[in-house]
Amino acid sequence: MFFEKTAIIGVGLIGAAVALAMKKHGLAKKICGFGRNETNLKNARARGIIDDYALNLGDLAEGADLVIFAAPVRAFKPIAGEIAPYLKTGAIVSDVGSVKGALVYEMESAMPEGVAFVGAHPIAGNDKSGIDAADPGIFIGAKCVITPTSRTDKTACQTITSMWERFGCKVEELTPERHDEILSSISHLPHIAAYALVNAVHEINPNFIGYSGTGFMDTTRIAMSSPEIWRDICVLNRENILNHLNAYKRQLELITAYINGLDWTTLAEEFGKAGEARKKLRDERNNTENK
Amino acid sequence: MFFEKTAIIGVGLIGAAVALAMKKHGLAKKICGFGRNETNLKNARARGIIDDYALNLGDLAEGADLVIFAAPVRAFKPIAGEIAPYLKTGAIVSDVGSVKGALVYEMESAMPEGVAFVGAHPIAGNDKSGIDAADPGIFIGAKCVITPTSRTDKTACQTITSMWERFGCKVEELTPERHDEILSSISHLPHIAAYALVNAVHEINPNFIGYSGTGFMDTTRIAMSSPEIWRDICVLNRENILNHLNAYKRQLELITAYINGLDWTTLAEEFGKAGEARKKLRDERNNTENK
Repeated sequence: MFFEKTAIIGVGLIGAAVALAMKKHGLAKKICGFGRNETNLKNARARGIIDDYALNLGDLAEGADLVIFAAPVRAFKPIAGEIAPYLKTGAIVSDVGSVKGALVYEMESAMPEGVAFVGAHPIAGNDKSGIDAADPGIFIGAKCVITPTSRTDKTACQTITSMWERFGCKVEELTPERHDEILSSISHLPHIAAYALVNAVHEINPNFIGYSGTGFMDTTRIAMSSPEIWRDICVLNRENILNHLNAYKRQLELITAYINGLDWTTLAEEFGKAGEARKKLRDERNNTENK
Repeated sequence: MFFEKTAIIGVGLIGAAVALAMKKHGLAKKICGFGRNETNLKNARARGIIDDYALNLGDLAEGADLVIFAAPVRAFKPIAGEIAPYLKTGAIVSDVGSVKGALVYEMESAMPEGVAFVGAHPIAGNDKSGIDAADPGIFIGAKCVITPTSRTDKTACQTITSMWERFGCKVEELTPERHDEILSSISHLPHIAAYALVNAVHEINPNFIGYSGTGFMDTTRIAMSSPEIWRDICVLNRENILNHLNAYKRQLELITAYINGLDWTTLAEEFGKAGEARKKLRDERNNTENK
């Protein structure tokens, strides 16, 4: 696996980490970046994250044998339409987007004959953004979900799988629908829970937040994520998120009922159940040397 | 400020950190521990956290000039009743409990003539427990709330304030009632939010939790806290917690309504509002060199 020309669309935290991981593992000859902000692209080139950048999508796509979409998911469809005429036969197009579902089928349909699309999502990142925080180490030990469909080219799928394995990910195949259902529960719902928690404390009294300890800091860290990106994820994964918000509100209602009804035994059991599940997750991660 | 005999009731994460901080700053001649588990007390003595331990509360309290309650809050009242006859005139009794309110007045009333009670709560800790994780560094830069009442001895209050300042805390005085209202919002509510979030994901599908990234891990870290301690906090701060659970559920209902009604502009604004408030908190903490 070696790519003569790799195009990275969106050189932010994850796009830059992909570029750095490709260089680290010797998978790329030339990495070309694309983005809305030329200053950012110049910085990325100066730091050796990308080798060059393009200011129009035709130049970017021309001759590329690998194209990675690392832009906000709402931009995928229009960009796919623009690059399609320039893609060469045999090119592989992939992504790192947090939502799959319908988008995967739309991306497949946007590809010209002879170009494979393979959906991918490394479940990695942090609350930071931008190339300054980019680190190929975030992929080590992280799960990466590949979402092939009945139309996905098997060789291209294997190539993308191998690439993420080289980066240190544990790769797993899921349907686009199953991916979205899972991510809604363990990523999209927690983000909304964190946003709502900050807003609730602010509503109770804007001065109270200053008394926060590490518990509140940890619980609400992801509320610093981009509002636009998370709005777009809500747009694209709306049904799952609404279902899971209902499940969450049911759990909060249960706890409210126990406290209201002085049912302290059941309350402690509920807390204990959550604690056991969370400790099991911690122990699994510690065992794979991934905190 | 120097204490000939300090009694620490409850030698766990915080009790042990207090003992270590007192030794670090040369405030204590002899620290005597008390707890239900003699093996733990022996370990604490072997590690030099405490100098000795008592197996009955009379021996512990006799001759002590400082007594710190660091046991679970539900144990405070019965223990206060037991030690009262043994406390010497001029002794100061304080605590590190997460709930104040009525408990402060009850503790005051339990003290014999000439013994001062001063409520204190260092807002510090982590998801760990026990003496192995005890670290006096957790107090550095943390807030410590002192909750004097109209009956509190001013000199004793000043002594306790100075002690926590020596440990590195930013000390602030609040009424017991205000303390509980604030802590309900920025600590008790987030714990319940985290417990409920783990249980919601488990209810959705017990296998999904294994796909978690760092976002879910951070958001639910405090769900590993002791279920019994958090049940007791719900018992003692029930009214505030019920009010704040309602505020949180209202925020979740708002977000649900925006997603359900396709009101993406307002949704992004709500997310952005939370993000700004949380970033402000981060920046304040970074400025005081306390993450």
